[in-house]
Amino acid sequence: MSGWIAVAGLGPGDDRMVTPQVRDALDQATDVIGHIPYVARVAPREGLTLHPTDNRVELDRALHALQLAAAGARVVIVSSGDPGVFAMASALFEAVEAHPEYIETEISVLPGITAMLAAAAAAGAPLGHDFCAINLSDNLKPWEMVERRLRLAAQADFAMAFYNPRSKSRPHQFGRTLEILREEQGPDVLITFARAVRTPEQDLTTVTLGEATPEMADMRTVVLVGNSATRRVGRYVYAPRSAS
Amino acid sequence: MSGWIAVAGLGPGDDRMVTPQVRDALDQATDVIGHIPYVARVAPREGLTLHPTDNRVELDRALHALQLAAAGARVVIVSSGDPGVFAMASALFEAVEAHPEYIETEISVLPGITAMLAAAAAAGAPLGHDFCAINLSDNLKPWEMVERRLRLAAQADFAMAFYNPRSKSRPHQFGRTLEILREEQGPDVLITFARAVRTPEQDLTTVTLGEATPEMADMRTVVLVGNSATRRVGRYVYAPRSAS
Repeated sequence: MSGWIAVAGLGPGDDRMVTPQVRDALDQATDVIGHIPYVARVAPREGLTLHPTDNRVELDRALHALQLAAAGARVVIVSSGDPGVFAMASALFEAVEAHPEYIETEISVLPGITAMLAAAAAAGAPLGHDFCAINLSDNLKPWEMVERRLRLAAQADFAMAFYNPRSKSRPHQFGRTLEILREEQGPDVLITFARAVRTPEQDLTTVTLGEATPEMADMRTVVLVGNSATRRVGRYVYAPRSAS
Repeated sequence: MSGWIAVAGLGPGDDRMVTPQVRDALDQATDVIGHIPYVARVAPREGLTLHPTDNRVELDRALHALQLAAAGARVVIVSSGDPGVFAMASALFEAVEAHPEYIETEISVLPGITAMLAAAAAAGAPLGHDFCAINLSDNLKPWEMVERRLRLAAQADFAMAFYNPRSKSRPHQFGRTLEILREEQGPDVLITFARAVRTPEQDLTTVTLGEATPEMADMRTVVLVGNSATRRVGRYVYAPRSAS
């Protein structure tokens, strides 16, 4: 029996946003591996072993998947959103690089609806013009790099999406992010805090940078920052397609 | 009868990447509006009127949808990929702003798998670190803005995804794009040309910036540019999660 690994995106939390391709992979799997809350979204069934693990053990999780697949298992590694955006796909390829004996493993990456696009859809079309996606966590890169990227992105007049904007272990950084954006973009640019999108706790708040406070974000929030042309129409926020 | 508009993303071309939410909206629709090749992906049925239109008539298409919904129709505007990424969602909100009599229209945006994430999944995980998405067409913005964004994005060491990299009407601009990237990033950064992803004609090519030529892209290609850490492992390309 030949094993494989699929790194699959479950989307933001609403089962109606899980693609049929991901559903099929889960139906064929013998093992599902991932962070506890994502594995909890997979229904148990006979012949399927669930392997929920804690946060921040991405490389261990990836190596475990490679070992299982080498033994013939059909393994789905689940991420929320899209596995290629600040999620398990890069971690798996890092593990393959560190353990080249697994280089022949059959691996597929199955895309999902990533958090920023679900959030943007709920808000209107705030990513309708050129944009960037930045992970504000400094677990895996120096904070100075984040600050530099924020400034350059603002100077490029990108719309922006922030993942992991704020955590208990680094409460001051999101305040610093807002300061940098105000310095570079001024107080009038719109910013949307999209919390728990497509779950029963969904909450969307749009304010100006001048009105924004650090407490408006937590780790379940995706933050969407406008470019200089971003505007409201009715209850929606959108970036026009054109710029001058 | 109360009409509505759903702006829905059909994903890159594989029906197994169409979300159940989008499928439901299509099943409930009385009218489907969109660019000819995307409307062609919707199966005809009794009670459903298909309105295929040519390219570059986005605002006419959006106004038509608003008029139909005001008359009670259940309208799905279809985009390929995700409707919020260089597609119909922003055009619809522009039309609402220009025609405020439609401000009360019930509008929902239904996300889809956008081309860059399907392309990234097919290639490995090249967008696994901070990244930006740039539409290289200068139909709706000055080319000078594109050049400026490219330079700032390279200086920020973003991975990059380019939509609409090349067309017959502007054959020189993608060559200029490659020149700018080589100036800012050097010749060794990896670049992936992902053509017709998730269709029978799918073709993936990864080379260095030094090896890349303008002819490697056409309008069916999404281009993914690495950051300074992007590397290959086996047949895959990925951006590591960490950076220093």
